[in-house]
Amino acid sequence: MPELRQNKTTREWVIIATERAKRPEEFRSKEQKKSLPETKPDCVFCAGNEDKTPAETFRIGDNGKGWKVRVMPNKFAALNPDAGNRSSDTGIFRKMAGYGYHEVIVESQKHNAVTALLPENDVADILRAYKNRYIFMAQDPEIKGIIIFKNHGAAAGTSLEHPHSQVVAMPVVPHQVRSRMDIAIINYDDHHECLYCRILKDEIKEGTRVIAETEHFVCFTPFAALTPFHTWIYPKRHSASFGQVTGAELEDLAKILRLSLRKFYFGLNDPDFNYVIRSAPTDCCDATYFHWYLSVIPRLTKSAGFELGSGMFINVSLPEENARFLREVKTPD
Amino acid sequence: MPELRQNKTTREWVIIATERAKRPEEFRSKEQKKSLPETKPDCVFCAGNEDKTPAETFRIGDNGKGWKVRVMPNKFAALNPDAGNRSSDTGIFRKMAGYGYHEVIVESQKHNAVTALLPENDVADILRAYKNRYIFMAQDPEIKGIIIFKNHGAAAGTSLEHPHSQVVAMPVVPHQVRSRMDIAIINYDDHHECLYCRILKDEIKEGTRVIAETEHFVCFTPFAALTPFHTWIYPKRHSASFGQVTGAELEDLAKILRLSLRKFYFGLNDPDFNYVIRSAPTDCCDATYFHWYLSVIPRLTKSAGFELGSGMFINVSLPEENARFLREVKTPD
Repeated sequence: MPELRQNKTTREWVIIATERAKRPEEFRSKEQKKSLPETKPDCVFCAGNEDKTPAETFRIGDNGKGWKVRVMPNKFAALNPDAGNRSSDTGIFRKMAGYGYHEVIVESQKHNAVTALLPENDVADILRAYKNRYIFMAQDPEIKGIIIFKNHGAAAGTSLEHPHSQVVAMPVVPHQVRSRMDIAIINYDDHHECLYCRILKDEIKEGTRVIAETEHFVCFTPFAALTPFHTWIYPKRHSASFGQVTGAELEDLAKILRLSLRKFYFGLNDPDFNYVIRSAPTDCCDATYFHWYLSVIPRLTKSAGFELGSGMFINVSLPEENARFLREVKTPD
Repeated sequence: MPELRQNKTTREWVIIATERAKRPEEFRSKEQKKSLPETKPDCVFCAGNEDKTPAETFRIGDNGKGWKVRVMPNKFAALNPDAGNRSSDTGIFRKMAGYGYHEVIVESQKHNAVTALLPENDVADILRAYKNRYIFMAQDPEIKGIIIFKNHGAAAGTSLEHPHSQVVAMPVVPHQVRSRMDIAIINYDDHHECLYCRILKDEIKEGTRVIAETEHFVCFTPFAALTPFHTWIYPKRHSASFGQVTGAELEDLAKILRLSLRKFYFGLNDPDFNYVIRSAPTDCCDATYFHWYLSVIPRLTKSAGFELGSGMFINVSLPEENARFLREVKTPD
């Protein structure tokens, strides 16, 4: 019989559709991604084409051998620091100028690099670039919310093949984030603890959904996973903002993120996925009640009318079975 | 320069990405959908295979020539009236039995029927079936929320080709719906009017986003449209629940829904789409502050990490331009 599970951080319900649930291995991608060249002459992110992008805002060098990671404004930026900060509220039609930042993090010189196959320190370099840009953007008093994300593969919305991530800094707090803050505050008032710290504690105790654990992080399948193989990576130390991650934590995050992505890569045959780093709004980065974390969403199913119309999800897999499957995936060293 | 617009019903912001906005005609689908046979022997929804589906819960007959619309439980139901209504709340891991209804509305005997090309009265028959099932399910005191939706095409999440819609009745109110109710109540307290009635009044007055108008309905592009060609159809008479739609209104809804879908079909070359009917929870169907409506979401773009991580959308088109384009699409009589 089907089951409803509630995500306590959003209060949203998920239908675990036991009647049509697939086994974990059935989600393994059947087709091989087309193989890419190491360099593509017309790719603006490839080494040699540095002059074809907007001016760099940050770079991690490679001991005189050029660069390992480059950051620059998105050429078709969704938000722009030159947009001013005009706001208008004419009744029902409220709008404001699209002030903000939208940058691209080019993750490697190589057109065909894949995060799961990079050395651990190269993944750490990508995360170091994230932190640099997060801290830079958070210093702007007009910025209220920052989101860091990666789209891998066509089903995840990528339009450019060359491996890259994006960071968007907004002059508003998304309502979705405010709603989560409200829920977390009520929980804090009721239970005197951070809801996310509590979830982490209970997930470790229960153990059935834990995929991997490192010194500073735990990777697990949410109890109310929205979609097959939806995965969370929570830091063990309470902290509301990704901007506060330490150097040692960043190296450890590279380790567990790389391991998780390798489990997807080898266990599910390189599925398309998004990952996002969720953080508190920049004006409450010291909140005792909120927790930053990283969410990985493999794009193995399509959302349809039910999801669009209700905000609820129907998950056609069992979170505990998927977690066990990923836990047991052996990745080459 | 980019612009942020707020959807007043959800308080969520949408980025109107002017820098990369496409012209309306650029969204026209380039490939023709494969043509389907009128009957497919192995399709369980085709005429002649009536014994291959679960038992009918409703039917609209065709003057002794069989049926025009059939309704039955979904064979792989996401919710089930036999699931009981157990609920458990063991701390962080709250769950309940998947009690509810999940039915399929088969819209035509013909495997290759397309709503946009049906006669108006056939569309009305589909809507009459929706109303019958809505009222039936709303009578169950365990049911709190009902959603009616259609998935058209692979990008919209359809797995079966034969034209059909679905209705899901849930034992919970989705948090997304509760959040909209909260916003609508605050607006009602502040302004003594239904927020949706006000939006409708202002949209008619402004006129730039109106696509079509009939006696009882207005079809328009939302000011803060989430995606290209996102479209709303609002009833003019205030009513919180689809269950209260009158017979005359239902015929008029068939008229404007068919016209809207024809504008998509001929203007954008039969794009994949979802539509959903949003209604108040069943225990507040007389709410003065909430309004039922129908939302059409053509699936012309993919959501990516930004949308998943923030709940905000980046719309790469201009709502006013899209509305003008649809307004001007001529459909054959």
